Amino acid sequence: MPAPYTLTEADLTDLATGAWIMGTGGGGDPYPSMLETRLLYRKGASVTVIDPLDLADDDLVCCVGKMGAPLVTQERLGDGEAIAETVRRMEAYLGRRFKGVMVWEIGGANGFQALLASAILGIPVIDCDAMGRAFPQADMTTFAICDLPAYPWTMVDIRRNAIIFTEAEDWSWMERMTRAACTVLGSVAATCKAPRSGLEAKTCTVLHTVTQALRLGRLVRAAREAHRDPVAAVIEAEGGMALFAGKVADVRRRTSGGWLRGQLRIDGLGADAGRSFELDFQNEWAVGRLDGVVRATVPDLICVLDTESGEALGTETVRYGQRVSVVALPAPAILCSPKGLRHVGPRAFGYDLDFRSVFS
Amino acid sequence: MPAPYTLTEADLTDLATGAWIMGTGGGGDPYPSMLETRLLYRKGASVTVIDPLDLADDDLVCCVGKMGAPLVTQERLGDGEAIAETVRRMEAYLGRRFKGVMVWEIGGANGFQALLASAILGIPVIDCDAMGRAFPQADMTTFAICDLPAYPWTMVDIRRNAIIFTEAEDWSWMERMTRAACTVLGSVAATCKAPRSGLEAKTCTVLHTVTQALRLGRLVRAAREAHRDPVAAVIEAEGGMALFAGKVADVRRRTSGGWLRGQLRIDGLGADAGRSFELDFQNEWAVGRLDGVVRATVPDLICVLDTESGEALGTETVRYGQRVSVVALPAPAILCSPKGLRHVGPRAFGYDLDFRSVFS
Repeated sequence: MPAPYTLTEADLTDLATGAWIMGTGGGGDPYPSMLETRLLYRKGASVTVIDPLDLADDDLVCCVGKMGAPLVTQERLGDGEAIAETVRRMEAYLGRRFKGVMVWEIGGANGFQALLASAILGIPVIDCDAMGRAFPQADMTTFAICDLPAYPWTMVDIRRNAIIFTEAEDWSWMERMTRAACTVLGSVAATCKAPRSGLEAKTCTVLHTVTQALRLGRLVRAAREAHRDPVAAVIEAEGGMALFAGKVADVRRRTSGGWLRGQLRIDGLGADAGRSFELDFQNEWAVGRLDGVVRATVPDLICVLDTESGEALGTETVRYGQRVSVVALPAPAILCSPKGLRHVGPRAFGYDLDFRSVFS
Repeated sequence: MPAPYTLTEADLTDLATGAWIMGTGGGGDPYPSMLETRLLYRKGASVTVIDPLDLADDDLVCCVGKMGAPLVTQERLGDGEAIAETVRRMEAYLGRRFKGVMVWEIGGANGFQALLASAILGIPVIDCDAMGRAFPQADMTTFAICDLPAYPWTMVDIRRNAIIFTEAEDWSWMERMTRAACTVLGSVAATCKAPRSGLEAKTCTVLHTVTQALRLGRLVRAAREAHRDPVAAVIEAEGGMALFAGKVADVRRRTSGGWLRGQLRIDGLGADAGRSFELDFQNEWAVGRLDGVVRATVPDLICVLDTESGEALGTETVRYGQRVSVVALPAPAILCSPKGLRHVGPRAFGYDLDFRSVFS
């Protein structure tokens, strides 16, 4: 399946499954955005995915994503037009047109924001993203790791409010300013992030993550249809590792500072009976502890999957009693570099912990 | 002293005294901004004040002001360049040049922001403002009362952060968005508010308030130099009313939500001995109670003056032991209209009170 290719309507469901797994609990449940994209398909739209390696160095691409707390994005549907509007406003501000739209984070509903913009604006989706998963902050991107400029950003909400963040001291200030604005707009807003050149899209992103999400979704569906174990299929195909299996015993959630924060506790079943697994989250699963001992941390992808269906569960959708499997998938290399870990390692989330990959 | 006129260096001190009285406790102590303006004067700059009534209807004027908590503006000095930068960025965004700069609020240090922009950019100051005093919120302006558009705004801070609020649902949303951004930037930021036409400057402002502040400052100084009572001079010249005189017994202050909030308690002296006066503030004095009974509320100008010198005391500078006089000055008519009171009456500050002017 080499790019360019055009996504079929059936692909949308698979992409949602894969993006939700790569969301590591965050990025928001893709289901509503998938339905919205499907609606655009049924009205005649379609989305073509192109390879970033086919871009000219001086092409200009935009990066879109929803910002906010996943719990809120479940209550406010229909953001495709808002996402498209952020792109139009960025084009007006720059006085230039975009060659394509790339995903800010492939994980969760944000994996679909570029598709929605693509379907509405008629420009292709670039097969890469700036996280290779989902993360809660703008300074946790490959662009920030590569020290690319953080500005300008456009932001619009469901009202007539629109903002251009024209300059920022650094990524951390851009994150603070946009987070404050997003929070006051109701903890969710559509954003078009700092535009990137073709060269930057080729060299400072995680490549081919749209295709990766699609592949992941297809294999989960195929395993389910063949009555095989979808969780095992994910682990096998992606070089992952099973960390724990059990039943959700407790979820504590609070929406604060524009994020969804909290803890999840899972009581073991089967081989893990009598043991307990706890996960802290800030939108995404950040740190997992087995019987109180740290077992896995960011940037390793910590995924909580429905044991039966292999579908991902998000920090805003997981609930008491669900049978779940905790799985680790390897993180893109750039995130595990010394510079990468300063942006996305456990310390960037406030933990006094060094990163030790479960795969090392 | 009809406009146009050029302010002398000596005028700056008088203007600071007058603007601080009209600040009704807020707008920030003008002293540091006055010093900064004087420094620009000594480097050769000067400021000309022109009458808004002399503007052509289609002239374009900018409105500048610092936003934030007065307590913080005492710690971060030297904002002239930041204010000028907001104007330059607004001109770049609009692709038009401004004919002059008007004061957002005449009260306190904000009375000097237009002077600083004028001295740096070489455009005249327009003799009017959007409050006729100081108020804590953007939706508490004559522009909001007249339902003029609230956008666009530019905002810059002391770093390289810059924002354009390109569109807002209404004044209240503009206030919320800019307040959140201002708070995250450290509870103080320079802003250039929505530009106004010459026609709007003539019809939707409080006219000649720069001249009013200058006159007020001059008469306080003249009274002091003649060993007359400066507080009595203010009351007589402005048609004001003495409400209370005493000694500051207690001040409670907290910086929250980008504002300085709190309460002041004054124990009576002389004719007021044995009585107590309490003032609530949100940047500015909002409600005054004599022995627990409401005596004065916004939008009447409630001013706390040093009994000896006639100089104003601000919510961030007033302190235990000071001998003070509480004085009411009449509010501009537009603020007392039914529409005006919806924006600036006691209920707009969260009080379950109707406005009853002390002058009615």
